[in-house]
Amino acid sequence: MSTQAAHPTLLIPGPIEFDDAVLQSMSHFSESHVAPGFVATFGETLSMLRQLFQSTDPAAQPFIISGSGTLGWDLVSANLIEPGEDALVLSTGYFGDSFADCLATYGAKPTKLEGPIGGRPQFPEIEKALSEKKYKLVTVTHVDTSTGVVSDLKGLVQAVKKVSPDTLVIADGVCSVACEEIAFEEWGLDGVITASQKAIGCPAGLSISIFSGRAMEAFKNRKSPPGSYFASMKNWTPIMQNYEAKKPSYFATPSPQLIHALNTALKQILARPLAERFQRHKEVSDKVKKAISDLGLQVVATKPEDQSHAMTAIYLPDGVQIPDVLPKLLSKGVIFAGGLHKQIATKYIRFGHMGVSVTDPSRTDVDKALDALKTSLEECGYKANA
Amino acid sequence: MSTQAAHPTLLIPGPIEFDDAVLQSMSHFSESHVAPGFVATFGETLSMLRQLFQSTDPAAQPFIISGSGTLGWDLVSANLIEPGEDALVLSTGYFGDSFADCLATYGAKPTKLEGPIGGRPQFPEIEKALSEKKYKLVTVTHVDTSTGVVSDLKGLVQAVKKVSPDTLVIADGVCSVACEEIAFEEWGLDGVITASQKAIGCPAGLSISIFSGRAMEAFKNRKSPPGSYFASMKNWTPIMQNYEAKKPSYFATPSPQLIHALNTALKQILARPLAERFQRHKEVSDKVKKAISDLGLQVVATKPEDQSHAMTAIYLPDGVQIPDVLPKLLSKGVIFAGGLHKQIATKYIRFGHMGVSVTDPSRTDVDKALDALKTSLEECGYKANA
Repeated sequence: MSTQAAHPTLLIPGPIEFDDAVLQSMSHFSESHVAPGFVATFGETLSMLRQLFQSTDPAAQPFIISGSGTLGWDLVSANLIEPGEDALVLSTGYFGDSFADCLATYGAKPTKLEGPIGGRPQFPEIEKALSEKKYKLVTVTHVDTSTGVVSDLKGLVQAVKKVSPDTLVIADGVCSVACEEIAFEEWGLDGVITASQKAIGCPAGLSISIFSGRAMEAFKNRKSPPGSYFASMKNWTPIMQNYEAKKPSYFATPSPQLIHALNTALKQILARPLAERFQRHKEVSDKVKKAISDLGLQVVATKPEDQSHAMTAIYLPDGVQIPDVLPKLLSKGVIFAGGLHKQIATKYIRFGHMGVSVTDPSRTDVDKALDALKTSLEECGYKANA
Repeated sequence: MSTQAAHPTLLIPGPIEFDDAVLQSMSHFSESHVAPGFVATFGETLSMLRQLFQSTDPAAQPFIISGSGTLGWDLVSANLIEPGEDALVLSTGYFGDSFADCLATYGAKPTKLEGPIGGRPQFPEIEKALSEKKYKLVTVTHVDTSTGVVSDLKGLVQAVKKVSPDTLVIADGVCSVACEEIAFEEWGLDGVITASQKAIGCPAGLSISIFSGRAMEAFKNRKSPPGSYFASMKNWTPIMQNYEAKKPSYFATPSPQLIHALNTALKQILARPLAERFQRHKEVSDKVKKAISDLGLQVVATKPEDQSHAMTAIYLPDGVQIPDVLPKLLSKGVIFAGGLHKQIATKYIRFGHMGVSVTDPSRTDVDKALDALKTSLEECGYKANA
């Protein structure tokens, strides 16, 4: 039984519903950001991040910085690529496009490869692009929150290594970390950036990332200084290393309350095998996709292998409008999100199924949402299999 | 009676002790960042910020962004000055020096005017500097957390307007907002940047700022695009304007929990006249300075008019070391900070007296701290007036 005040169930693709213990950690009494107790908590949290990413290489470097998930793009764009260098941006929706804008802000030259709406760029065209020009890095949105399209990170790294082994592979895992599998080192990734408020299950306000030893070397070998101050790896790397070594140090004041909440969330995640967690998200996602199909509806991600297990973007039936269906869902205690991809924004809704709504056996959030969706569509005049 | 777990009283110059209601707001159940309830809370919080800064000009623009206080420097450096333009940085310690580093990161050319340790640059030399070169902006640390030196913002704006009226005046108010008076428009300031965890009394994790209509015009008239993506006013200004107009919009996910906590903190601050709040901080600061003097100790800020009301940096007596005195204070339930200014770091300690520790009549934090300091120094072998 949750100790939280009664509220509609938040099933958007982040922020998600949070566990009581995580929210209680947000109320932690005030601590010095350089006192031994908090330094130990921060250090432990960084070490747990390595476990979440299945990383054991001491040269890999995790970062936890106050900010939105978006700050991760600045971290990549201002540190791992230099002005004038090329980046290949694999876009599967809104977030790929914005990552390209961020890269350009810091002087990199992004080349975008876009999938069709609901699809993703295919390996042959990616390999062709990589063979035509020298790219410092490739970015890919693991799960694009605007479309629910998932990318194949393992296959991508293999393709890049075949054609352009020096190119760094950076994944935007904002909507995938802690629900889609990421074997950071085994797969050969060079960076994953994410945020706290999605499948990790900690309130928003933290930019979370990990970079490979190879990426950190690329940073150290820069000819120009980093293009950002607050998002500078030069400023943050020694701080993260000191925290993990349980030594106090200071660049900018972290948020002890958010770090405590992240610590609690990661302890909950790591208390059980990660494989079990990923499998559970897959099962629930499969159930959602089947229910959507049974309702006679289409998922934005066209092919089954492109459909994420974090969320489902669902096309509305003809004649049903977002401003009609979302309030009906809310009246049944369920919050979904509207569309975000510019070209189809008015035509679909988004259902996030991550974290405690999926993993906590005492919660019936997903079943409640599927029932509410069916009833709400009926109230809008839609009949399944009509 | 606080509902918080028993803990030593945090009297460093930020984070400070937090009120129970503020900490409880940190545990708010999960909400969508674009749902009407949260949008209204965010909008109200922005409007309250205008009141805190005594600002009524609709052209002035407040920002609340997930990040540390440091992010405010990026906001200024990446938006209000262009590469190659000059900035005059008035430094009274560690934080002025770092602001100069941030400006240089984005291509501006900082010229530093430093006061002596414990003092500040004087108006004649500031006016002389301004008359010798065209400066796009002047930055000043209102209270430098490393030294406790307060600058005279009102006098500074007058001096700048006399010599170089087009130059923007930007104050770093991280350690002053909500305890030192700032009449933003009456004094003619163009920007104040701050953070949540000091005198505002909300946990760390928010960069908070306000800029004048004139500063926003300077931003709009830039020839080059902003130098940052996450700290871009181009990206954030429409979002802040929409939130304040109670319209949902999205650039990067804010932290609903931190915004709720800030909302609670600002409501508490604005429930009483601001003048009373500033006066109370002044009275408590005067009492602390007198107690320090009675103990035969020196304050780092040499002249009374340079001494902030937010905190006191205290030189230790000869023979008393930081690693001896801080643990003794902790054993009495009081946490002070060590030194931060590189040249004198081992020689002084810092005592923050801001927020509920000062304004809540039921708390005896400051008296407890002064008693603990006296006893701890005696335990270290120091005798006042010896």
